Amino acid sequence: MPADSSLSTPGRGCGPLLQRQTETRPLRQRLFELLRASGASSRSDLARELAVSPASVTAITSELIANGLVAEVEGVPRDASRGRPPVALTVRPDAFVIAGIKLSDDAHSAVILNFAGEMIAEATTTSAAYRMTIAETLNETEEVLEAALAVAGLRRGDLAGVGLGLPGVIDHAAGIALWSPLLTERGVALGAMLAERLGLPVAIDNDANLLTLAELWFGAGREMSDFVVVTIENGVGMGMVLQNQLFRGGHGLGMELGHTKVQRDGALCRCGRRGCLEAYVADYALVREAQTALDWNRDTAESARHLLDRLFAEAKAGNQAARSIFRRAGRTLAVGLSNVIQLFDPHLVILSGSQMRFDYLYAQDVLSEVASLTLDTGRPTPRVEINAWGDMVWARGAAALALARLTEQLLGENRG
Amino acid sequence: MPADSSLSTPGRGCGPLLQRQTETRPLRQRLFELLRASGASSRSDLARELAVSPASVTAITSELIANGLVAEVEGVPRDASRGRPPVALTVRPDAFVIAGIKLSDDAHSAVILNFAGEMIAEATTTSAAYRMTIAETLNETEEVLEAALAVAGLRRGDLAGVGLGLPGVIDHAAGIALWSPLLTERGVALGAMLAERLGLPVAIDNDANLLTLAELWFGAGREMSDFVVVTIENGVGMGMVLQNQLFRGGHGLGMELGHTKVQRDGALCRCGRRGCLEAYVADYALVREAQTALDWNRDTAESARHLLDRLFAEAKAGNQAARSIFRRAGRTLAVGLSNVIQLFDPHLVILSGSQMRFDYLYAQDVLSEVASLTLDTGRPTPRVEINAWGDMVWARGAAALALARLTEQLLGENRG
Repeated sequence: MPADSSLSTPGRGCGPLLQRQTETRPLRQRLFELLRASGASSRSDLARELAVSPASVTAITSELIANGLVAEVEGVPRDASRGRPPVALTVRPDAFVIAGIKLSDDAHSAVILNFAGEMIAEATTTSAAYRMTIAETLNETEEVLEAALAVAGLRRGDLAGVGLGLPGVIDHAAGIALWSPLLTERGVALGAMLAERLGLPVAIDNDANLLTLAELWFGAGREMSDFVVVTIENGVGMGMVLQNQLFRGGHGLGMELGHTKVQRDGALCRCGRRGCLEAYVADYALVREAQTALDWNRDTAESARHLLDRLFAEAKAGNQAARSIFRRAGRTLAVGLSNVIQLFDPHLVILSGSQMRFDYLYAQDVLSEVASLTLDTGRPTPRVEINAWGDMVWARGAAALALARLTEQLLGENRG
Repeated sequence: MPADSSLSTPGRGCGPLLQRQTETRPLRQRLFELLRASGASSRSDLARELAVSPASVTAITSELIANGLVAEVEGVPRDASRGRPPVALTVRPDAFVIAGIKLSDDAHSAVILNFAGEMIAEATTTSAAYRMTIAETLNETEEVLEAALAVAGLRRGDLAGVGLGLPGVIDHAAGIALWSPLLTERGVALGAMLAERLGLPVAIDNDANLLTLAELWFGAGREMSDFVVVTIENGVGMGMVLQNQLFRGGHGLGMELGHTKVQRDGALCRCGRRGCLEAYVADYALVREAQTALDWNRDTAESARHLLDRLFAEAKAGNQAARSIFRRAGRTLAVGLSNVIQLFDPHLVILSGSQMRFDYLYAQDVLSEVASLTLDTGRPTPRVEINAWGDMVWARGAAALALARLTEQLLGENRG
């Protein structure tokens, strides 16, 4: 049976159903998340914003205060000359502490956040191997977490939960890494293994989804109901938010934009196939071309990051081969972005990942190319934003995952 | 603020949110649609299937019976030897009559359905022009509708609503054809114009969405929560159902699979760009190659359909050039399907449209090509089904659109 999307627009097949979808979360959770997003709000502001009665807000906030999740603070007076300032509410930052960890092929990062989503500490460690065994993965994950805890002056037992992100096809619901370029094995029950190792609740996900969550919780997507995130680093990832919710594909395993084909019999991808988008724009694709363009010594153990930075400097200095590498990557990225826009028609496209330090990839001619490849049918052109959060954004997304799970447990059990 | 998807699984970012989404339609509408899908059900079966109390079902069905939408019929006895058969409920087929119309570049079709979604009559007319003015469009739409009404022995006033589908970028919510290959003008308020001409409520949509609705209401998608429909005719269309709801993209204007790029600087598309999927697989793409492969006389006004049928016969008879045309179309379609699977990871892909009479497009080697282009990451391979409903499926989808709008009006106003 077809299901309808909304209480207010019950039409199945009539109207842009997903667009009109109304809020279905419990009121207490909506109130709580509104409060966290706003920093501090008065009860009357919350009631107005949620379009519910002040009495409902008072009942819910009393319970949240009693549970230690929310506190009263002195609000900012609207008019300094008139009496005492109104009482505002805020999420209690000290109620819980959570951690987020992102694994990648050369370095791992971890952050510690408080319950208000504010950063307490961060740490980065280098990885011993490009592909890790399960034992190595658990060891290195623990190591970067301990490093962040040390910075924060906290112990592991202080944490209420951990979120972990890594590239690949991750079954978030089951906590299984079906395939990851970082792991030597397939079908690893990484969530359960890490939970056992750390003695803490653990949620895992694909790293592009984490970055999308970070945008949804803390970033440019905070005010948007539908947006797409495209990440370019060692691979090309994609995350999508529909109606304020992360979309993970029909089977919940994520969207493989990096392996959509942009050229038949094209460049060889590390997946073994040809013509994948990431075979033109990911780090490894640029590295193999850089070796031709630059005076590269194969006996030197130069890191991919360093080689690409050198390539970028050469391009800026006028090296035509170096420029040609970035230009092809940009033009091919334009094909991928145009395809995404044709299919999903998002309001916003966020480009992210470490390659965003190479401005060739989002230069005006690349964005013009996207527009020229996209059917002109009167639909609005989506905004394209470049994420410049730096490397810690991934780990913050992982922390958002842990925070989401914790909030769901706290507010979902005894529903208001 | 991020919105949660469900009352039962309030986790934002935790779990495959759209997958776990629960039912949010009013109970009376869910009950009604379950009844229509099942044909006839007892009150106790309805209560069990909807997981609600028998008392709720009795209250709602009493109201639906009083309103003339539902009737009691004699049910099938479970055990012939034991007493009188149970009373079953059914949607009253005669409660309303609606029409669905599909416009295309060479022929138009219309169907009349009863309130139970059963076909009463159908008709087809030929089109005078490939591209029509608004006046021609309204005239030809009226003509095919009148033809179907004549077959049914009904008058226009007997209809409760009309659904209309045509190719192009259609703003369904606003009733505006932003761009259609059939129309000489852009931004046409076709919904309102046709409603005024016919004196009836009219809903319009992109034809691929109609076909997706037909699958959702009457076809292979009836039992599926997530599926994709790809249509190949004069163009390439796509429709997608997520969580039993039609997805129309971020702006509600549909998904332009046909204009995603499969080859940089590739074949010229009728949109004016190069390398679009439809420039390799749509009718016009095959027609222009057929003119080279066949002994084609440019002075003969041979229809595209006839030319392609001749091409297909030649291919079957061993003409290498003809086979090469279908083979390239099939291989390129495989790229498009593989990209769709990488991005959306659907449970089912339905191939539809008049080109499905050419079995080269879904031959085993095409499906093998799809598999070989798709990343092997342990995710389940989607089922691929070929729709063999014939030409009337489009108009039935248009009728489903009208039926959906009518049901929404009847059951959405005074909510149970």
